[in-house]
Amino acid sequence: MSTIAPGRSAQPSTSKPENGVMRALFKHHAGEGLAFDAARPKPTPGPRDVLIRVRKVGICGTDRHIWEWDQWAAGRIPVGIVTGHEFVGTIEAVGSAVTKYKPGLRVSAEGHITQWADFNSRTGNAHIASDTRIIGIDRDGCFADYVVVPEENVWPVHPKIPDKVAAVLDPLGNAVHTVMAANVSAKSVLISGVGIIGLMAVTVAKAAGASRIFATDINPPRLDLARRLGAVAAYDVRQGDGFINEIKAATRGEGVDVLLEMSGAPSAFDQGFRALRNGGTAAILGIPSKPITWNITEHVVFKGATVLGINGRKMFETWYQMEELLLSERLELDEIITHEFPLEDFKRAFATMMSGEGIKVVMGVGG
Amino acid sequence: MSTIAPGRSAQPSTSKPENGVMRALFKHHAGEGLAFDAARPKPTPGPRDVLIRVRKVGICGTDRHIWEWDQWAAGRIPVGIVTGHEFVGTIEAVGSAVTKYKPGLRVSAEGHITQWADFNSRTGNAHIASDTRIIGIDRDGCFADYVVVPEENVWPVHPKIPDKVAAVLDPLGNAVHTVMAANVSAKSVLISGVGIIGLMAVTVAKAAGASRIFATDINPPRLDLARRLGAVAAYDVRQGDGFINEIKAATRGEGVDVLLEMSGAPSAFDQGFRALRNGGTAAILGIPSKPITWNITEHVVFKGATVLGINGRKMFETWYQMEELLLSERLELDEIITHEFPLEDFKRAFATMMSGEGIKVVMGVGG
Amino acid sequence: MSTIAPGRSAQPSTSKPENGVMRALFKHHAGEGLAFDAARPKPTPGPRDVLIRVRKVGICGTDRHIWEWDQWAAGRIPVGIVTGHEFVGTIEAVGSAVTKYKPGLRVSAEGHITQWADFNSRTGNAHIASDTRIIGIDRDGCFADYVVVPEENVWPVHPKIPDKVAAVLDPLGNAVHTVMAANVSAKSVLISGVGIIGLMAVTVAKAAGASRIFATDINPPRLDLARRLGAVAAYDVRQGDGFINEIKAATRGEGVDVLLEMSGAPSAFDQGFRALRNGGTAAILGIPSKPITWNITEHVVFKGATVLGINGRKMFETWYQMEELLLSERLELDEIITHEFPLEDFKRAFATMMSGEGIKVVMGVGG
Amino acid sequence: MSTIAPGRSAQPSTSKPENGVMRALFKHHAGEGLAFDAARPKPTPGPRDVLIRVRKVGICGTDRHIWEWDQWAAGRIPVGIVTGHEFVGTIEAVGSAVTKYKPGLRVSAEGHITQWADFNSRTGNAHIASDTRIIGIDRDGCFADYVVVPEENVWPVHPKIPDKVAAVLDPLGNAVHTVMAANVSAKSVLISGVGIIGLMAVTVAKAAGASRIFATDINPPRLDLARRLGAVAAYDVRQGDGFINEIKAATRGEGVDVLLEMSGAPSAFDQGFRALRNGGTAAILGIPSKPITWNITEHVVFKGATVLGINGRKMFETWYQMEELLLSERLELDEIITHEFPLEDFKRAFATMMSGEGIKVVMGVGG
Repeated sequence: MSTIAPGRSAQPSTSKPENGVMRALFKHHAGEGLAFDAARPKPTPGPRDVLIRVRKVGICGTDRHIWEWDQWAAGRIPVGIVTGHEFVGTIEAVGSAVTKYKPGLRVSAEGHITQWADFNSRTGNAHIASDTRIIGIDRDGCFADYVVVPEENVWPVHPKIPDKVAAVLDPLGNAVHTVMAANVSAKSVLISGVGIIGLMAVTVAKAAGASRIFATDINPPRLDLARRLGAVAAYDVRQGDGFINEIKAATRGEGVDVLLEMSGAPSAFDQGFRALRNGGTAAILGIPSKPITWNITEHVVFKGATVLGINGRKMFETWYQMEELLLSERLELDEIITHEFPLEDFKRAFATMMSGEGIKVVMGVGG
Repeated sequence: MSTIAPGRSAQPSTSKPENGVMRALFKHHAGEGLAFDAARPKPTPGPRDVLIRVRKVGICGTDRHIWEWDQWAAGRIPVGIVTGHEFVGTIEAVGSAVTKYKPGLRVSAEGHITQWADFNSRTGNAHIASDTRIIGIDRDGCFADYVVVPEENVWPVHPKIPDKVAAVLDPLGNAVHTVMAANVSAKSVLISGVGIIGLMAVTVAKAAGASRIFATDINPPRLDLARRLGAVAAYDVRQGDGFINEIKAATRGEGVDVLLEMSGAPSAFDQGFRALRNGGTAAILGIPSKPITWNITEHVVFKGATVLGINGRKMFETWYQMEELLLSERLELDEIITHEFPLEDFKRAFATMMSGEGIKVVMGVGG
Repeated sequence: MSTIAPGRSAQPSTSKPENGVMRALFKHHAGEGLAFDAARPKPTPGPRDVLIRVRKVGICGTDRHIWEWDQWAAGRIPVGIVTGHEFVGTIEAVGSAVTKYKPGLRVSAEGHITQWADFNSRTGNAHIASDTRIIGIDRDGCFADYVVVPEENVWPVHPKIPDKVAAVLDPLGNAVHTVMAANVSAKSVLISGVGIIGLMAVTVAKAAGASRIFATDINPPRLDLARRLGAVAAYDVRQGDGFINEIKAATRGEGVDVLLEMSGAPSAFDQGFRALRNGGTAAILGIPSKPITWNITEHVVFKGATVLGINGRKMFETWYQMEELLLSERLELDEIITHEFPLEDFKRAFATMMSGEGIKVVMGVGG
Repeated sequence: MSTIAPGRSAQPSTSKPENGVMRALFKHHAGEGLAFDAARPKPTPGPRDVLIRVRKVGICGTDRHIWEWDQWAAGRIPVGIVTGHEFVGTIEAVGSAVTKYKPGLRVSAEGHITQWADFNSRTGNAHIASDTRIIGIDRDGCFADYVVVPEENVWPVHPKIPDKVAAVLDPLGNAVHTVMAANVSAKSVLISGVGIIGLMAVTVAKAAGASRIFATDINPPRLDLARRLGAVAAYDVRQGDGFINEIKAATRGEGVDVLLEMSGAPSAFDQGFRALRNGGTAAILGIPSKPITWNITEHVVFKGATVLGINGRKMFETWYQMEELLLSERLELDEIITHEFPLEDFKRAFATMMSGEGIKVVMGVGG
């Protein structure tokens, strides 16, 4: 059922990490690109950490920003860091005070690390903790043979979930968190922006019970894919905003129950809220690159709308929801996870992702 | 797409109501059965009522109680009443003060009639109003050529919904209200009892996003049907309660997220709550015929469970949800609505339903 | 306990309306001011309406816009209309199809009129119906001896609630809806803007269980009043935004749980969201006069905030909540309802309100 | 402000624990009573634990069961254990892998210990984890100079909260969890059972915004205290159930919005649900000692009620809510925490509590 084409190299890299050193992609300078280090020192877990042998990793849009060294990356990423935060692997060693997990367990991990001491961490909302540091962004990440995370961050992967999918639970979690926060069950939904996470949101929303899904973007092949994944209509917004009236005509003249904003485009905010019914819910994952000018009076106040800011994934409610959705066998991810390359082919992997030829691109690291 | 077999007489009755009189099934005496009256006076709508020409009706379990004249029926039903509360029809006339609807509109109606003056009626929960009277139970119902309801009770039926389905929106609404109250999206669900509404709940829960559905009953053919409608497992509880451990094994050892109790059997309460995880939600539609002995300490308090009493359908949130679910084309009702007879064949219709040969049985009344 | 000073004329007007005509304030031309008509034709209720003899009315900020004939008013208000939408009175007559109420009942009414036929009207959210018309804005209002409303809009006033308070249930309802939507129980709250409704929100939030209330404004006397009504701190934002750090210091460094935005000032949006903790809830009643430039990425998305648009009052959940709060005897409205004048003194009444000398100004109409 | 009378010995015990040993109350045999050990080995914290020097402790109803050695205690409590689970103290030492807290911090702790590895623990509901063990019940507790708990269980006590109150955050948390789960803001509430936690619930519900509180019990002095703490009416149910009609008369004939069941008495369940309005919410903390016979059809299903099982306190949402409520200075606990004795006077302390002379009894342990 996989759509990964022959020749796209799904086999994992066969080279084994040597004792004490490992392979890693790291940010070698304050500029474009990443570099490959064949002999990076293997990390050592602290008393509450686990050391994970990485099997597969996913390339995130954030990794692209780091590669391109844009303004955000230049202001946030420490040069020298191992990048990457989406992965699946196997626990190889645990720190002396670790109690929950043992070597040999196949795991992924939440990349947001908190001290579990602030309000949100202690009330089920650690994803918006005030002290969060992220692997691959603020400290060494997973584009390497090994990665270290606190045991609290570990997520044991269900045996039925293949590595290819387990490698991308992090972005899938963004989609699941957005969809579940907005509560789409038996509701009409507009997804504005069908990039990687928007496409995941289409299949997630359908599996989570959305009655009818509409999608918008400016990329016809992805709009086509959105339709194949279950959107009843997918509109190219470059053709005007006539689609808003079409959506209203299909929804008693009122507009959709739920808007999932995943583009970050100011025009999509405006159109999306116009297509939302009075009393509807908008979950916002897309992040405009600068402040937007917004008619909050018309779009939120008079409409009686609910707007939900979505950051990361809930730790760990979203992960459990993801497991349920994957076990339901209703998620269609094969056309979204399009390519796989070995770690050493990272330049091709990034190029495939950045050109738009691939959607979600995975790299095989170890066995 | 219909599974209604040839020979089962799907064609509507051809006899037209005469001027001033109509055909009707009514409770003719304080005992078993219903009688057919070919010349019942046609009702006249009050200033705020609509007169509806009935097209199709459904036979409810409640109608069976009325037919059998059990203790409940004997205490509640006024002899002489026209029975029936599930129907679709066409507005033929409206009262002088009616503002919302006009003759010619195809409609169903909520059978719970309230004055819209009490707390629940004025806050979106009219289904549990303190002054509710029900058509076909407290006043004349729809097993007749005509029925009168207040305009507030009218539900315009979407053109895409066929009469056969529109006739049973009332019981489908019970299933939808139960499922939606429990919020099954991306959750594991146990449905205890797969009678008519339990079977509807299977397909509704799946469409509304339940990740995995388990079902229990004591009727093997209906358990089979539950599987065909999407249950991943369906257990005959006469074979013991080993199924509870099977469910737990499939749900991280915890139990299901959601229990939908639709049997009214005391043993099902006990088993269902044992199969429910700590912190889970149970929606109760099944009504035990007498007080049950219940270990509320273990099943609710220690478990931190949420228990929701479900009565009727929300007016009209449930109806909108139903429309969305039907428009999503994910509900599979063809194997649930098994038979259709003309109104005059009501004895066969009731016998088919009461024998268990049929599940939901519909009667055609007029065009 | 009343703070209405002697000499401020709390006694109602003694002139009785003559047969067939009544006194009324109306918008006599497309410009500033209102005019008094001593012989306006008394309205006739339709079959589903009630005719109410007005006892007292409140002057709303919206009435001020109508008086001043600003851009909004010029675009919305039909010249010739009787203005006013806050009132208490007594039912004098009912239409032929009215079933719920009888003459003699003391009532207020929800001024938003809907056909009760659209999605929001039929699901407990008629306050955001798509077909709303408002008394005193789109059709004749209550600054008159009589007003007509549909029976569905009537609110019977509890005997323990005095006329002075019953006259202002409409704006009090705005405050109650905002506070209750945000769920302030055992939470810290920032109220930005303590005009009439902001001040009401202070006492409502305290009665509804807010643990600690902070307030901001640019009007020192109203900040003082906010403190007397229960705010633990009230800040003049003209002195800079140092208050944000003070609020954070008092709230574990995180910020308040809840923001109630009641000013409509763009700077208040910015400051308010900075003072809101991650995962907090903001209810927005204030309406900026034009689109605002807003850092939604920082303020909503990264923060994981929930933003609620607040429009009017829920019909009729808010009205029941108001009754409960008033019966709890915890609302302190005496310093908010500062003045009362007879209807004929409307020029003094408006001047007192518009100068800021008075806060909520009431006019006595009839007995 | 304290109501603790002179002579009731509020001063802490002056004896200091010797090196390596400590004083402790322990369950010395499988029968009635507890014994005092002056030289119990001082516990040693594991790598993730903290060692706390106990300052004050509270005596819980559970401790009474352990003292009396009833059937529950005989089946659950290991002989030899140090009992007690309500306390405040100061961190004296931390394990090698502890990262969040340091010696010198004044703390209380959640007594429910979980591995933080199951579904509920990882989703903000650790209070209903499947692997919970409780201090003073399943392992050594706090009726001693020292107690050891995992660092995850520690709750830093706000400086404004006095030791006397900090010692009883555990049972106060039961009351807060119950009240907050039911969402009492602007609602009428019936509290059935005003023992220690029921009385706490009265003051908590009032502070959390309950509009009107009704209480029932069979203990006149505690009913009096309920009135002083804010109940508008308090009924002795030995005088019949006429109070149900009184409550209905005060609540539009409907019944209360919220029932907080804190008695565990089967008759209170029946009466409480009869006094609850259709669509109301019941939070159940009281635990009947055996299965009850319950008319779930009338009380839950037809009523459309929501029933919430309440177990322990949320970790740590309830603790934050408690802090907010205490900082609001609206909780009145002085008449509830009636007595204090030094640890060595434990026999008098228990006798005072068990006779009903005292309500919440605290013991001073160390400085």
